[in-house]
Formats: sequence, C-alpha cells, structure tokens
Amino acid sequence: MTRIAFIGLGIMGRPMAGHLQAAGHELFVVRHVSPLPEELLEGGASECATAAEAASRSEVVITMVPDTPDVEEVLFGAGGVAEGLQPGTTVLDMSSISPIETKQFAERIAEKGCDYLDAPVSGGEVGAKGASLTIMAGGSGETFERVRPLLELMGANITLVGDVGAGQTCKVANQIIVALTIEAVGEALLFASKAGVDPGRVREALMGGFAGSRILEVHGQRMVERTFDPGFRIALHQKDLGLALEGARALGISLPNAATAQELMNACAAQGWSDLDHSGLVKALEVLAGHEIA
Amino acid sequence: MTRIAFIGLGIMGRPMAGHLQAAGHELFVVRHVSPLPEELLEGGASECATAAEAASRSEVVITMVPDTPDVEEVLFGAGGVAEGLQPGTTVLDMSSISPIETKQFAERIAEKGCDYLDAPVSGGEVGAKGASLTIMAGGSGETFERVRPLLELMGANITLVGDVGAGQTCKVANQIIVALTIEAVGEALLFASKAGVDPGRVREALMGGFAGSRILEVHGQRMVERTFDPGFRIALHQKDLGLALEGARALGISLPNAATAQELMNACAAQGWSDLDHSGLVKALEVLAGHEIA
Repeated sequence: MTRIAFIGLGIMGRPMAGHLQAAGHELFVVRHVSPLPEELLEGGASECATAAEAASRSEVVITMVPDTPDVEEVLFGAGGVAEGLQPGTTVLDMSSISPIETKQFAERIAEKGCDYLDAPVSGGEVGAKGASLTIMAGGSGETFERVRPLLELMGANITLVGDVGAGQTCKVANQIIVALTIEAVGEALLFASKAGVDPGRVREALMGGFAGSRILEVHGQRMVERTFDPGFRIALHQKDLGLALEGARALGISLPNAATAQELMNACAAQGWSDLDHSGLVKALEVLAGHEIA
Repeated sequence: MTRIAFIGLGIMGRPMAGHLQAAGHELFVVRHVSPLPEELLEGGASECATAAEAASRSEVVITMVPDTPDVEEVLFGAGGVAEGLQPGTTVLDMSSISPIETKQFAERIAEKGCDYLDAPVSGGEVGAKGASLTIMAGGSGETFERVRPLLELMGANITLVGDVGAGQTCKVANQIIVALTIEAVGEALLFASKAGVDPGRVREALMGGFAGSRILEVHGQRMVERTFDPGFRIALHQKDLGLALEGARALGISLPNAATAQELMNACAAQGWSDLDHSGLVKALEVLAGHEIA
C-alpha cells in the first residue's frame, strides 16, 4: 500500500481520493478553503498543516486543482509540496493546466530528486465517481508503470501519451475537440430548428451515422431538453480553450474554430452563463440567430 | 415487386440500384454520360430513351444525382421525369440538395397527382455497397411507409424526420457536424503534433472518452496515416456547406464555424486538393501552420 498526499479535494478530487482510500492506500490531506470531506477523515486520512508536511510523509503526491497558477502555488509556494519532498517521491499532477509550464514544473521537481508525471483526466464528475475517467499521461515509462496501479483505481482508459507535458497537450487536444463538437452540434440543431424541423428527431436520425458522437448523444440532448445545469462549466472550458489558444500562439499554429468557440464562450460569460454546462454554448448561437432551438 | 425508375447510377446509385434489383424489383434506367452498368442490364434492367419514359413505366422514381440543378433537370427538363409521370407515382429523391428547392420540387410533383419524399443518405460508397446507409426522410408518413421496404434494402438507419424538405435539412445538419468535427480533429492533432506529441497516440488516448467519434476514429487515422484518397471528396462537401451557408442566410441564422470550415475547403480547392477525401481539410490548417501532422 502507498502513502499518498492528495492535494485538491473538490468535485473531482474528492471521489478520486475516495477510490484510493477504499483500495487501502493511506491518504495525507490538507485543509484548504472548504472543510475536509468527512468520509475521508473517517476512513483514516491524516490531516496535515501544510502541503509540505503531507508531501514529506508520502511516496506519491497527487495534485488536482483548478488551474496552472494553483498547481504552481501548491507545488512551489510557501509551505508547498517542494518544501517537504523526499528524494524518490513521485509527483502526479492530475489537474488540467498548461503543457508548457508543466515541463518547467517537472524540471524543478527533478532538481529535488523526484519524478513528475502529468496525468490530466476527462470524464467529469460522473467519471470521477465511477472511476471511469480517461487519463492522459506524460512522463517516463518507468514513472508511469510505478503509478499505473493508482491510476487504474481512478480511471478506465489510461494512456501514456509521451514525455512530460504530453498528457496536458493531449488534454488540450481533447478540450478542443469537445468544444468544437459541441459548437458543431449547436450549429446543426439550430439550422434544423430554424428550418422548422424537430431538432430532437434530427439528433436521433444522425446518432447512428458518421455525425454520431457522445457529444451529439449527451450534449445534443441537453440542447433539445434545455438542461444546462453542469456538468462541466463554461468557465472551465474557457480556461481550457485559453490553454489551446495561448499554446497555438506559442507553438506557431492557427486554430480558427477554437478561437471562434472561445469567443462564443466569452459571449456566454457576457450573458451571465459562465456557470452553465458547456453545452450552453448553443445559447450564444441562439442569441446571434434570435431563435431558440426549443 | 415494384417497377422502379432509377435515375443516377454513379458511385452511390449503382450499388443502391443493385440491391433493389437483387431483391426482385424491376428497374428502368436511362443512359446518361457513362455506359449503363453491365450487371444491372444483365440482371434485367430495361434501358429507356428518356427519364420521362422510365417514369411512365414505373410506380416509384428514384433520383440520385449530384446537385440541386441536376435534380431540377432530371425532374423538369426536356424529356424529364415530370413529362412521363402517371398519377399515383412516388418520386423519391435520394440526392443531397437544397431543402428550400426541395419543397418547390415537391409542389410541382404534387400538381401531377404524385407524392414526393426527400430521402438523402449518409455513409458514402461503403454504406451504399453494404446497404448500411443512414437515410433521412422528409414527407408524409403514408408516402414514407409505402417506400420504406425499398429504403430498407439500401440503408440500415432510416428515419422519417418530418415533412417534405426535412430529410434534406437533416442531411445539411449532418454535413455541418461532419465537416466541423473533421476540422476539430484536425486542429487537435495539429496542436499535439506541433507540441511534439505523437498525434496517433493522442487519437488513441481520446478514442474512449468524450472526444471520441467515428470521425476521430476514421478521419483522425487518415490524417495520421496521410491517406487522403476519397472517400468523400472535398468538392462535394463544399457543395453541402454551401447549402448550409445559403440556408443560414435565407433562414436568418449565423453559422460561424461552418463558414470558416467552408473557407478552409476553399483553400484546399485553391491548392488543387478538391478531389482529396474531406479529411484532407487538415491540410489547409497545416498550410496555415507551416507544419504537417505527420
């Protein structure tokens, strides 16, 4: 069994840590903004004063926080993980953050004699609770194999994509496809609806063919039934498309439809819809058309 | 068994007509540009001098031609279907054409005492040969039920979406989603590749998750393996996105990413790639980036 510092016990991290604990691993946790989850403390998790203390008592440190600056703060801020790391510890960042800064974080962790694996996830709260997350890892094969048994407790579809940063790059690619497919389904259902055709029947007719996808199935249904409670919030997808567009500029490539999708997300934010599910992107198209799908 | 005039024996129409003949239906065909398929003539198809003659000898007229003006010519031109139609005949247009003009064609056919069903397909040559096409129909329920046994010989996923024109509207929606998902996969794999990550492994990592789709599977592989032989040609998808964008203007809606996808298709045409498979859309993104995925 492994001693694990788990930093970031939010909507995603909490059930993920629960799966690790349920399998018999020992958790070291740190109180941040909210109270620590009762079920983890009752399950034997040790509360530590700082991330540094949690790291010093662990063989693996898992971080699951919202954004790049959060990872930087948790790892390298005052009382952060880096202050407590023992050589040989593995740092496993499962947050979705910048691939470029990930490489810098990994270098700084390597200076402490430790290994770094980026392993962001896809699948949302449902995937976290059901241990069915898609996990995209970047790092050495050796590090990956060492933590793979832990990853298998949290996910169902686990791939070592490449070296450090490749997991985050793959996650950005994932978020590009998801955002643009939601936008595509929105354009298609809006077209049908404005032409007087029932968008629900269009969705059904297309499900079995080449236009079919999980996005058409799940988010197409959300658009037709107007159920925009998250799910995955527009504000978070704005962050991820930000990584795509900053990355595109840094890498020297052009992502025209990701840019437009981000502008539509920005329009949603302008309308006060940041906390809607990302399928609510269709509402920006509806505003432009002066017509609602349903 | 039904007497069927089948107009348009190209890559799609030829195997579709073959399935009807194999099930025992009697075909009436018209020589157009190319010689008539030997296997259909050997199977007993009757060669007619004009579409009018073929229509006059049939209970159902099926049209499967490239574009809106072709349907208009075949139906209403000199020696066209309308000249030979007997009252009570069903006209079944399986071409992919304008939903708006489809409604006009249906009205003109109704004046002859005949029924009209638009029933465009998705699934390409593979689907046509395998009788596994997705068929999206528009018309009355009565007309649909009458020809459903014929549709079932050609397709596997058959939906009456709504009234006349709804099939074509649904097909446009299909083509919007397919084009934009291809574009999305192209942006995502280009991002990964330029960041130094193997796009083939990204594709595999994403297949099981929310970014997964037939497009990622089939066209993502084409992009990675550089197999851009059609398949479905860029020139044809340009036509379909043209229907989407003309429709958007006529209906009063805005389809920003369909517009950009069309411009990327136009760029492909400018580079001489009109006859590549539509997954070749990624090559326009590659030109913009000065970087090829693989």
